[in-house]
Amino acid sequence: MRVLGVDPGLTRCGVGVVEGVPGRPCDLVAYYVIHSDPEDELPDRLLHLDRSLSDLVAEHRPDSVAVERVFSQHNVRTVMGTAQAGAVAVLAAARAGLPVRMYSPSEVKAAVTGSGQADKAQMTAMVTRLLRLEAPPRPADAADALALAICHVWRGGTRDKLAAAVQRNRGAR
Amino acid sequence: MRVLGVDPGLTRCGVGVVEGVPGRPCDLVAYYVIHSDPEDELPDRLLHLDRSLSDLVAEHRPDSVAVERVFSQHNVRTVMGTAQAGAVAVLAAARAGLPVRMYSPSEVKAAVTGSGQADKAQMTAMVTRLLRLEAPPRPADAADALALAICHVWRGGTRDKLAAAVQRNRGAR
Repeated sequence: MRVLGVDPGLTRCGVGVVEGVPGRPCDLVAYYVIHSDPEDELPDRLLHLDRSLSDLVAEHRPDSVAVERVFSQHNVRTVMGTAQAGAVAVLAAARAGLPVRMYSPSEVKAAVTGSGQADKAQMTAMVTRLLRLEAPPRPADAADALALAICHVWRGGTRDKLAAAVQRNRGAR
Repeated sequence: MRVLGVDPGLTRCGVGVVEGVPGRPCDLVAYYVIHSDPEDELPDRLLHLDRSLSDLVAEHRPDSVAVERVFSQHNVRTVMGTAQAGAVAVLAAARAGLPVRMYSPSEVKAAVTGSGQADKAQMTAMVTRLLRLEAPPRPADAADALALAICHVWRGGTRDKLAAAVQRNRGAR
């Protein structure tokens, strides 16, 4: 399955696309960081993000999209921009008819490093190793988006398969 | 000028459309509250809001859209949903090629009642009087959206006219 992961942000939004199956190393397809200028007006920034994400979804045709769940422990000003960017990402995927899954940062860390407390350096190192890259993805927003996509291939993939199996089983009765 | 005001919310999103010119009473065109079920998944809720708002924009063809600016003083859980709904509203207007203006709650209160500290009852009473309605708009989310639209006709309208006059003046030199 091919997954597009989004680490939402208004100024820098990480996007990572990977392909793989649960329990095996994933393959890197591409990664990006979508930038917008904090000096620009909000409507222009959201429109730029929406168009960029919609273009990437159309280009890579993922089977599903994983978006980082925004949490309240950050400072409120940052959270607002992240919530707005996250809404645009979720909406872009939903408008394309794709299933969207949301994961908290600690779920992603646990899936990728085995520890929900992993720091940014550990995460980047694991993403680099898991995707067999020669160098760590730069900037770090891209690494976080790739980690989200890997997390969804492994966790969501299994969950989707289970759901599909339950569905088939029900149909067979 | 015709203005569509949006009081963003994920569970209840108020929409009010008015027509008018700065300094004169506005005319009510229509008002709505877009509902979504808190039990539904976020992608479905955002998609429903996006489609409903896009339909209303297409139906009423406003000259511009006014959206309430989300503030941090509320509790963070509420702010997140409001920020997400606000992003969808701003994006829907921007995608339709319309100018979007954002106003803080106190700017709207000051424009409509003369006091930035006005309470909900005063706001609803003033909106009812200003639009010469026989009864207050219900629910209150609709009154807030109408107040936003009135605020923009009066404040933004003047601002837009000034900007246009400056532009003309520059062109004439």
